[in-house]
Order: sequence, then structure tokens, then C-alpha cells
Amino acid sequence: MTESLPTRDRLVAAMADLMRFQGYGATSVKQIVDHASAPVGSLYHFFPQGKRQIAADALRSTGAAYIALVPVLLDPHDDLGDGIRAFFDAAAEDMERAGWANMCPVGTVAAEIADTEPELREIAAGIVSSWIDQSTAYFVGRGLDPDLARRVTVMALAALEGAFLLARTLRSTESLHVTGETLAGLVSHLPLTAGT
Amino acid sequence: MTESLPTRDRLVAAMADLMRFQGYGATSVKQIVDHASAPVGSLYHFFPQGKRQIAADALRSTGAAYIALVPVLLDPHDDLGDGIRAFFDAAAEDMERAGWANMCPVGTVAAEIADTEPELREIAAGIVSSWIDQSTAYFVGRGLDPDLARRVTVMALAALEGAFLLARTLRSTESLHVTGETLAGLVSHLPLTAGT
Repeated sequence: MTESLPTRDRLVAAMADLMRFQGYGATSVKQIVDHASAPVGSLYHFFPQGKRQIAADALRSTGAAYIALVPVLLDPHDDLGDGIRAFFDAAAEDMERAGWANMCPVGTVAAEIADTEPELREIAAGIVSSWIDQSTAYFVGRGLDPDLARRVTVMALAALEGAFLLARTLRSTESLHVTGETLAGLVSHLPLTAGT
Repeated sequence: MTESLPTRDRLVAAMADLMRFQGYGATSVKQIVDHASAPVGSLYHFFPQGKRQIAADALRSTGAAYIALVPVLLDPHDDLGDGIRAFFDAAAEDMERAGWANMCPVGTVAAEIADTEPELREIAAGIVSSWIDQSTAYFVGRGLDPDLARRVTVMALAALEGAFLLARTLRSTESLHVTGETLAGLVSHLPLTAGT
């Protein structure tokens, strides 16, 4: 954990990290403060509602960081399919380097808490909906018609979340390379609207 | 919970059910016996190692049940793509009817416990590997070459697990219909080997 970050940010980053490795239910307040090298009092100072509140913040901040990657990783590629292949290949490398942590705390936690933590489920749903909207808008900007752009987004997001899950379970990047390659083949052949 | 099942089977079914709704970490021994309408003593009688052991059994039994669905749901369709579309549409209906429980306890739990419960991670990995092998063999039997059959399997399994996650988070069947439709389009156009 980077000691130079303000305590509040360290606590949120620690929670995001712990959720990636062990989910929400198994994460204790003690683990969060230990991982953040912060005193217990600081957690309740910044997050009076405790673990649930810090989880909400961790989901929101990682949600915002992840959607920002879409233009960063896809803009350099003239062919959208090539961009998607590169995106999945980068995720595979990162994941192996991170010791098979789930790359997406939102994905890890959403299924686990969907019934037991309704407030967190709504926050996760808001993040995922906003990912779908923003990524759809990006694909429209790249020349796909809006309906097709939304379908490509939903398909790619489902494939990415599922490939993370398989990679984490099997300790293998195969799922990420195969899904990236398959989506690339699909997307490279989609019709683009005139003028793009 | 069906009262007529033997106690041991009721405990395993209760655990599978609880993992679908709330994952592994949040599930207590008390909840398992309550959900199974069984005395606490019976759990430790059948499963001396407690929760971890019953989870292992629940993963194995649902794993075996799920792979059996592949030929049942795909055999009736002459076109493999039509079969895959029907498979995803059936999953969407089941999931909405089940109140958005995750359809796959293996998927829900695998990401959550991959680092904290190494024995369960290995069991989940064994189940997923055997799904991939058996489903690849099924697609080879339907005329795909072995390498392509494995790629289709991995892609479809990743898309299905991710679509479950999105459906559960968003309380919407869109992800299952979109991924099923997209995969159907892909698979209907794959080359089949001669003689099939």
C-alpha cells in the first residue's frame, strides 16, 4: 500500500484490493486497516458506517477508473477488432502478473452480495449500467449504430467478466486470449456507418 | 428444501443453494442446517470437516449436473447455433424465475475463494476443466475440429458466466439474450468437418 496517499484513499484502495482477492464477506475491518497501515479509529472517522460504506466507495472509484481505460486502450487502434484483442491480451498479462487476483472488484463482489447487501448491489448495478452506456457511446463514436454498439458492449463485458472468472479459477490466461481473439474477429467484420 | 431427500443430500443441496445466493464467506453452518431442516449434529456426522467439506460436495454435485445439460439442451437442434441460442434463452428464463440467484454456484464461489480456500479452488478448477473437456468433445461430435471446438467452448463458458454475473447485478436478462444471440450467429457460420 502506498504510504504517501492520504489515509482515506489508502483505506479505499485497501478495500478494493481485498475485495479482488477474497470478496466482501470474508473481509474484516481489521484486515482493511492492517492492509492500509491505518489506525482502526481512522476507518470509523472517514466511514462512520464501516465496511459497507468503504466498499461502496471502493466500487465507485474502481468503476470510474476502469471505464477510463476504454478510450485509452482502444483509441490507438484503427481497427476496433485489433483494439479489443489488445485490450484482452493486456488484461491477461496484468492478471498473471497480479497473481490471478480478479481484475474487477465490481465483478467479484456483485454476484456475492447481490442478495445480502441490497445497497451495494444497487451501487454495483449503477456502475455496470454506466459502463454499458459509456462504452456504447464510445463504439457509436467509432462508427457502429447505437443498437449494435450496445450489443457489442454487453457481449464484450460479459465475456471479459467471465474470462476473468475462468482465468482466476484455472490459473490460466487461455480464457482471456480466446475471448479477445473471438470478439476481435467478430468486431472487425461489423458494418460501420457512413462517414466514419 | 425437499423433506423427502436423505439428510446428507438435503445438506448438500442447501449449501449449493446458499452459495448461489450469498457466496461461501457469508454462509454459516447454522444457515446450512436451518435451510436443510436438519440437526446441527447431522452436518458434522456426514461432514466432519464442516463447511469446507460440504462446499466441496456441493460444487462437485452441481458440476456434474450442469455438464449433463449440454447434450440435453443442444441435441434437439440440428443447427448448433440455434441450440446455443435456446440454451442461453432457457438460462435467462430460469434465472428470472429463481429471483436472480446466480445459476452457477461454481462461478459465484470460484472467484471469491480462489485465494482464501486453496482446496476449494482446486476442486472448482477440476470441475471447470472437466466442463471444458466434455463440452469440447461434444462439439467435436457435432462436427467441429478439436481446436475450434475448444475455443468455442471456452468462449461460450466465459460469456455464460459473465452474462450470469451481469444479469444478477442488473436484474435483467439482456446480457443472456445478447450473448446467446451473438454466439449463435458465430457458431452457425463455423466450418464443419466432412461427413457430419
